[in-house]
Amino acid sequence: MLQLFYSPGSCALASHIALEETGAPYEAVHIDFGADEQLKPAYLAINPKGRVPALATERGILTETPAILVYIAQTFPAAHLAPLADPFALARLQAFNSYLCSTVHVAHAHLRRAYRWSDDAAAIASMVKKAPQNMTACFALIERDMLQGPWVMGDAYSVADPYLFTLARWLKGYDIDVAQFPKVHALMRRIVDRPAVKKVMAVQQLT
Amino acid sequence: MLQLFYSPGSCALASHIALEETGAPYEAVHIDFGADEQLKPAYLAINPKGRVPALATERGILTETPAILVYIAQTFPAAHLAPLADPFALARLQAFNSYLCSTVHVAHAHLRRAYRWSDDAAAIASMVKKAPQNMTACFALIERDMLQGPWVMGDAYSVADPYLFTLARWLKGYDIDVAQFPKVHALMRRIVDRPAVKKVMAVQQLT
Repeated sequence: MLQLFYSPGSCALASHIALEETGAPYEAVHIDFGADEQLKPAYLAINPKGRVPALATERGILTETPAILVYIAQTFPAAHLAPLADPFALARLQAFNSYLCSTVHVAHAHLRRAYRWSDDAAAIASMVKKAPQNMTACFALIERDMLQGPWVMGDAYSVADPYLFTLARWLKGYDIDVAQFPKVHALMRRIVDRPAVKKVMAVQQLT
Repeated sequence: MLQLFYSPGSCALASHIALEETGAPYEAVHIDFGADEQLKPAYLAINPKGRVPALATERGILTETPAILVYIAQTFPAAHLAPLADPFALARLQAFNSYLCSTVHVAHAHLRRAYRWSDDAAAIASMVKKAPQNMTACFALIERDMLQGPWVMGDAYSVADPYLFTLARWLKGYDIDVAQFPKVHALMRRIVDRPAVKKVMAVQQLT
């Protein structure tokens, strides 16, 4: 059985929802970041990067959200979570996910984990100060050029939707009103009605 | 015919090599970063993110290296550039590419483009100072846990190889000797013998 290692509200939420959408059995394992469990030997043996998500499969461990999301879609094709047979459509989906991991998630990381890129307290404060501007620019681009609506890829729900939902939830930690991005806002309100999303939010104790 | 928009030596080098490996016809279009061509209206109409690579297809534009690389592999299956039919192996490949785009490329961006995350000169200098340490940590992890050898995915050459080659070339801009990472170093020496790599390096005027 697949095992997903997650921390509540982290980017692992996307993979958790995608797994739940498939209807397949899996186990969700809470890694307690408050106790730095992700940096302890037991977890580093699973994921030497000390991050979540990690997905344990019968063939080994998978990491990195964009990779896990397409793996889930490809392993459970009946759930129709990605346009697997259409290289162009799949590439558009992957480009969206790649933008989330390499630009949006990175913009957000400068709010809470700027110490990754500087050891200087004033520099860290400076990065924290600019993070809201970068997050706003990211979501403005998503709204204007990337989100087709009503779902990310248009009429078909896909793994990109829980991934966008996961990162857009982080806007609550800023003084940024998601309502200024109408398509993103509509997606956020729509996705929480999905049974899989409701269930995972309850498991992760998120609102 | 496919058109690839690139800047020499940028991360677009990976997609350029992958395209060349397929043997398919394509046009490579140089976007002159020295003249800020990537920020001018003509290019922003192609890629509103103002970055390279972008791949123009008959169905529209694709962006983001990991997405373009799998698109190339899926569109030209005879080139055997990715394990498309094996979800686990493909996910391992994608996890590797995702780590390159979201962690290694980002670590490097703090050397040359730290202004993205701070407006303060001292903070930028602080990020520049830490970039070599982060790049070293990234390649140590790749060497120890990720690169199977001789190619990234083991015996089979894949799109992950030109992508790693592209980012490992950037180590020249640091005081980091790639020879301290023997598997990465061996891959770097091996890949430059491939005809596709030789040809693209000549086109982009790289050594």
